[in-house]
Amino acid sequence: MSTRSTPELIEPGAEDLTEFDRLFEHTSAIGATPAGGLHRLAASAEDGRVRDLFRDWLKAHDFEVRVDAVGNMFGLMTFDPDAPWLLCGSHLDSQPSAGRFDGVYGVLAGAVAVSSLARQLRERGEKPACNLAVVNWTNEEGARFQPSLIGSGVFTGALSLEKAWESRDGDGIRLKDALQAIGYLGEDPVDLNIAGYAEIHVEQGSGLESSQMAIGVVRETWAALKRRVRFDGEQNHTGPTPMAARRDALLAAAHAITAVRAEADQQGLQMHSSVGRIEVYPNSPNVVPSRVSLLIEYRSRDIDLLSAASERLDTTLHRIAEQTLTGFEVESSVLRSPASLHQGFAELAHAVGAELDLPTTDSTTVAGHDAISMNSRYPVCLLFIPSSNGVSHNEAEYTSDHDMHNGLRMLTGLLHRACTSSAAFR
Amino acid sequence: MSTRSTPELIEPGAEDLTEFDRLFEHTSAIGATPAGGLHRLAASAEDGRVRDLFRDWLKAHDFEVRVDAVGNMFGLMTFDPDAPWLLCGSHLDSQPSAGRFDGVYGVLAGAVAVSSLARQLRERGEKPACNLAVVNWTNEEGARFQPSLIGSGVFTGALSLEKAWESRDGDGIRLKDALQAIGYLGEDPVDLNIAGYAEIHVEQGSGLESSQMAIGVVRETWAALKRRVRFDGEQNHTGPTPMAARRDALLAAAHAITAVRAEADQQGLQMHSSVGRIEVYPNSPNVVPSRVSLLIEYRSRDIDLLSAASERLDTTLHRIAEQTLTGFEVESSVLRSPASLHQGFAELAHAVGAELDLPTTDSTTVAGHDAISMNSRYPVCLLFIPSSNGVSHNEAEYTSDHDMHNGLRMLTGLLHRACTSSAAFR
Repeated sequence: MSTRSTPELIEPGAEDLTEFDRLFEHTSAIGATPAGGLHRLAASAEDGRVRDLFRDWLKAHDFEVRVDAVGNMFGLMTFDPDAPWLLCGSHLDSQPSAGRFDGVYGVLAGAVAVSSLARQLRERGEKPACNLAVVNWTNEEGARFQPSLIGSGVFTGALSLEKAWESRDGDGIRLKDALQAIGYLGEDPVDLNIAGYAEIHVEQGSGLESSQMAIGVVRETWAALKRRVRFDGEQNHTGPTPMAARRDALLAAAHAITAVRAEADQQGLQMHSSVGRIEVYPNSPNVVPSRVSLLIEYRSRDIDLLSAASERLDTTLHRIAEQTLTGFEVESSVLRSPASLHQGFAELAHAVGAELDLPTTDSTTVAGHDAISMNSRYPVCLLFIPSSNGVSHNEAEYTSDHDMHNGLRMLTGLLHRACTSSAAFR
Repeated sequence: MSTRSTPELIEPGAEDLTEFDRLFEHTSAIGATPAGGLHRLAASAEDGRVRDLFRDWLKAHDFEVRVDAVGNMFGLMTFDPDAPWLLCGSHLDSQPSAGRFDGVYGVLAGAVAVSSLARQLRERGEKPACNLAVVNWTNEEGARFQPSLIGSGVFTGALSLEKAWESRDGDGIRLKDALQAIGYLGEDPVDLNIAGYAEIHVEQGSGLESSQMAIGVVRETWAALKRRVRFDGEQNHTGPTPMAARRDALLAAAHAITAVRAEADQQGLQMHSSVGRIEVYPNSPNVVPSRVSLLIEYRSRDIDLLSAASERLDTTLHRIAEQTLTGFEVESSVLRSPASLHQGFAELAHAVGAELDLPTTDSTTVAGHDAISMNSRYPVCLLFIPSSNGVSHNEAEYTSDHDMHNGLRMLTGLLHRACTSSAAFR
């Protein structure tokens, strides 16, 4: 970026930082856990309350609020109805017993950044090339409703609205009905011409903290294999039924869980694996389990390694099914390719970091983010701020106010440069 | 038994067999599953409906109905208020997606046997030495509420009423409140002087069928170890968290499940083992599980083998916890000793079988039954009728009408001889 004809970089004022702190404190109280964490599942009553608070805040700060059919909330700041949109945001839903920063930070930082930027642009009489908007995506976490990234997936067209609506939680409640119950099954048209999307998020790793960097600029994502599998056994009495006659679906699942871990252990640092969710029927102490579903994840930077591991997984699970006399089905399987993020947008982020004297570094994301959904269709910049000890999806997740303020400065500056330099997205 | 001074054995009449069939058909419809099974968990709405039907039937057949504080339902037929009681029965609750015969058969056969016997005794002018009663015990299965055998356990004093009331299902609902909701939190005094208890049940094994016997007379029970254990890990993101830093409670549980099976496999036919129930938190696809509880069962005829296996289990689970960086707790552990049932009562059963020309054989029970609870305090006779292919806790559980009628004849005859020969319980 040349600074020759560039106006002075806009930073959030002291009143904006205070406003951010206040907003973060107020939203953190909704779904707060006694241990200082957050439990605010998608489309729950708590999600409804935090959405209400966010909507009221947006309206009070001159945003136009729109809610689409999958509950995504947009706060729009229009400068020129014919101009394209520069969007930023993240998600207000959380995992169970999770941290206060994951997702929430990006929504609130985005809202305050856009509000501050719009106010200062108007004060200066600067006319941006883009309109500005902030978004709260529905069900990023995939904790209550699967898959994850539902809101941004529907927005990009990767997931149909019908499929999203029909997603059911563990009690059989549809996402559509849950959204309606909290008043966020919207009907607003949100057909924005997106110039670019920026998201700022806690790192959920310890890279920035250990290298003492303020900002990570994500350049690429790991590939991920997400597979839901089911073993079918036969209900029988756990007492008299001879061991040789048992068709125990939970035993099969246990062998699968240890095999999934063994695969990652064999690949060293090249691969992560997990089984985070298991569903067991009838799950009664005296009954041999007849039906068990597992959600298996493999992640790696290396798509070839992941494809090979995926084939080995098939072989292993079939062998387990044979040995345990159970049936085996793949219920769903998604291989998410590794992706590179937009180069020009990333370079602009590094340049803005330099202007602000914030040390930046290139990062990689292993976790999925709404930004990764958006990256399939639009120029995207994903920024990280440090996570203490890399702990995430845990009540002990922590990022300091100082690091959050640095991120807010970074995001505000990036949006300023991006919306006044249309070259950023080329 | 000498037959010198013995009156002719009372058998159910054709109208009693028809009445049994009708009653079995009507109760089978309450909680019926499309596949021909039964899903009627303890203290559920379905349990309430079948209890109402049973209560109305008892009243219509001249029983006095009493419901105690843990919901046990007694149908009393008094001949002499000062005489002791000969009780029979079983349970109307079922496992999830279970069969129509387990438990239900013993309650209905008991009710029809007592009704038929009382009528015929009065017709003959025979005065029995005992009063007669039938009982439906609460929560025999232990599916919705743990432990199993709650109703009979409270009756014998093995379990306190307070502990039984506080038992909670998977949604946190207390047994006390669930009983109140269906109208079976009783207040009737049931302080019976029990002379003996008889229970007839489907075998849940294939022994009788393969040896073509009509009736099994249970002589002894297997020992059982029931242990609830918990692994404590740490919530973390399943994506970026390095594998070496994970403390995955589900991985620990998976190793435990395979180890529990391996122990039984090593003992050949001497031991059965299972994990029928697992509880996982937070059970979200993208979170490393932080808390997993397992219900582990070991069963064997040989208590020494079981004690040694129990010690090995401790060692194994501690090793698994160390290797997976998880914490480990035993939440509860019960070692049920093997037991012998009352000799005189069993011999009387064989003699009645001979009188009826029903082939009888000695049996062993691996499964727990209310009769086993009662056996700790009273003379008990537990009878089996054949189970097709030994299938149980499964919708395909099946016993023919012919076998059920044989059992009803057997139970009626046994109650007749037992209530007119006080020597039976010596």
